[in-house]
Amino acid sequence: MTDYANEALKRHEEFKGKIEISIKDKVDNKEALSVYYTPGVAAVSEAIARDENLYRKYTWAANNLAVISNGTAVLGLGDIGPKASMPVMEGKAMLFKQFANIDAVPIVINSKNPEDFIKTVIDIAPSFAAINLEDIAAPECFEIEDRLVEALNIPVMHDDQHGTAIVVLAGLINSAKIVGKEIKNMRIVLVGSGAAGTAISKLLNYYSPESEILLVDSKGIISANRPDLNVAKKELLEFSNHNNVDGDLKDAIKNADVFIGVSKGNLLTKADVLLMKKDAIIFAMANPTPEILPDEARAGGARIIATGRSDYPNQVNNALAFPGIFRGALDNNVNKITTEYKIKVAEKIASLVENPSEDNIIPSIFQAGLAEEIAKVFAN
Amino acid sequence: MTDYANEALKRHEEFKGKIEISIKDKVDNKEALSVYYTPGVAAVSEAIARDENLYRKYTWAANNLAVISNGTAVLGLGDIGPKASMPVMEGKAMLFKQFANIDAVPIVINSKNPEDFIKTVIDIAPSFAAINLEDIAAPECFEIEDRLVEALNIPVMHDDQHGTAIVVLAGLINSAKIVGKEIKNMRIVLVGSGAAGTAISKLLNYYSPESEILLVDSKGIISANRPDLNVAKKELLEFSNHNNVDGDLKDAIKNADVFIGVSKGNLLTKADVLLMKKDAIIFAMANPTPEILPDEARAGGARIIATGRSDYPNQVNNALAFPGIFRGALDNNVNKITTEYKIKVAEKIASLVENPSEDNIIPSIFQAGLAEEIAKVFAN
Repeated sequence: MTDYANEALKRHEEFKGKIEISIKDKVDNKEALSVYYTPGVAAVSEAIARDENLYRKYTWAANNLAVISNGTAVLGLGDIGPKASMPVMEGKAMLFKQFANIDAVPIVINSKNPEDFIKTVIDIAPSFAAINLEDIAAPECFEIEDRLVEALNIPVMHDDQHGTAIVVLAGLINSAKIVGKEIKNMRIVLVGSGAAGTAISKLLNYYSPESEILLVDSKGIISANRPDLNVAKKELLEFSNHNNVDGDLKDAIKNADVFIGVSKGNLLTKADVLLMKKDAIIFAMANPTPEILPDEARAGGARIIATGRSDYPNQVNNALAFPGIFRGALDNNVNKITTEYKIKVAEKIASLVENPSEDNIIPSIFQAGLAEEIAKVFAN
Repeated sequence: MTDYANEALKRHEEFKGKIEISIKDKVDNKEALSVYYTPGVAAVSEAIARDENLYRKYTWAANNLAVISNGTAVLGLGDIGPKASMPVMEGKAMLFKQFANIDAVPIVINSKNPEDFIKTVIDIAPSFAAINLEDIAAPECFEIEDRLVEALNIPVMHDDQHGTAIVVLAGLINSAKIVGKEIKNMRIVLVGSGAAGTAISKLLNYYSPESEILLVDSKGIISANRPDLNVAKKELLEFSNHNNVDGDLKDAIKNADVFIGVSKGNLLTKADVLLMKKDAIIFAMANPTPEILPDEARAGGARIIATGRSDYPNQVNNALAFPGIFRGALDNNVNKITTEYKIKVAEKIASLVENPSEDNIIPSIFQAGLAEEIAKVFAN
């Protein structure tokens, strides 16, 4: 296996990062300078000053966005700060360009205070046509996203929440077909109540209010009867446990159809999986070590197993969703990425798997035309 | 003559702005994704988290900066707001790439409040290796620049102030040689007390404290005897009028060696120039119409005439200075662009004119190797 860590250090040093600014024409003579800079540019600025709707006609905001983080919840690394998060944001900008031809600018913000962060993003927002929030710790990420969506008239999406949720729903739609069950009849156990877990429970509940969704933390099933819940966890009851069930992980998993983990490695055992219903579906997405390894899950009777890793089948990768989502929003002047859009994107992603099977519930992120197809969801 | 306005509108629409993000390598396969994004990128982020000095080794902050404006003083257009200022900022980013191979990101900020503006720039500053402030109205621009220079450990320069001042000094150094005078013996009349005028008087006074520098506004020479001066104008007395002279523009210009205008068109007449000393030097930099047209100035006896326009000789263009200044600062980890550096840059620019003459006091911005030569000022 390639030593990705060393190779990454080597190539990041060699290339000095991964992105750069390019100019669409040369300015190496007086004529070009007079057209692109003074005096010609004044006509363009005046046109926009008269009519702000021309902004995206005449500037790179036709096709740009910001990938914004404060580095408080980066990958599996946690709160590593703004500068250390830059390589991840630059990587994300690479994916935007590679998969959707979008000009993404990584911006890292030196503030953990949500009020500061929100104010700063609002202040710089006119520079961009959309905002992709990234790797911001829960629970601050929820308020930050909600407030920015409300304040700004451009698409704002916290990808760690919704990207993952959309791909999970896509995978679940195909999984349900394969095992011949309906999602509305499923018991779904979800472990992890951070950014991704919350968004998954919200989206699943919106898509299928009839499903029994149980969220489990280290103290057991999150239920209204628990005296120890903080405000954030209490809010999760809106999207889960409508029958007010109590118990621990074993109680939850018993007769469950689906296990979804966005928590930590080696949380689930073969014995747990044996308690699940026939044709169990396991999304074990902790990184780098899943909640249960595919072989062990299969030994416990699981029929479909997805992870966050590229070395197993069914990789749940939010890079499946975000390039097409922002491509579609930018192309169609969609200013709010609503839950309805998220569900349509999940259905579209599911539909892009040609012959769904146990090891093929989600498309590869390298599937040709993926972002273009997803973008169509936003047309009219 | 080309209709630059229409050509600019046409090309800005055709290209959808002027800059874009490019990726330094493709991420179209699993191996590349694993090196540039997960899991490989974690090693890079961890390295920076352990040692922030590695930030510029591994990220595009090796070679980037932000061009930041709030659109309050754009070209000759005034306060047109952040979005309308974007074409100018994008143009500036083009010049940074063309002349100094620097990756400049235009950021327009939706705030006229200096406190807000400063806070926002500080918050996003970790994303960049330097900050070029642009087209911010006086007097706010002075406090904004001073506070940011103090707060941040990266180069911060308001180009409208210092770019112009540096090129004026460069031109004056060569002009003095041509007319055989010493700057220290000159009477210099400066009209315009905004961003550029203030910076010019500061830099000239620092370079040559013995010169008699007189600032003139619509009410006459700025002197300690005037009861109507606001705080900003009072501060200008630190850099001008050390002999506390009173009078109007005619009094000032009488026996002056140099007229420098950064004010408005058609301010100066042939009759005024006739009052100046022999071999008068005129920098008439109002845009698009100079304080006096070259032919009229010459008719009044002026020997050297510079303007801000590309269709006359001796164009004072701050694009002569900023690409090389930031190239030099980035390459040599210089965190403060001090007045000493500004003077060295002016001297360097002056020295790059091979055979200075009346119509050749400043290099062309297209002169090969200009930015590289200027950058050398910052080595050691």
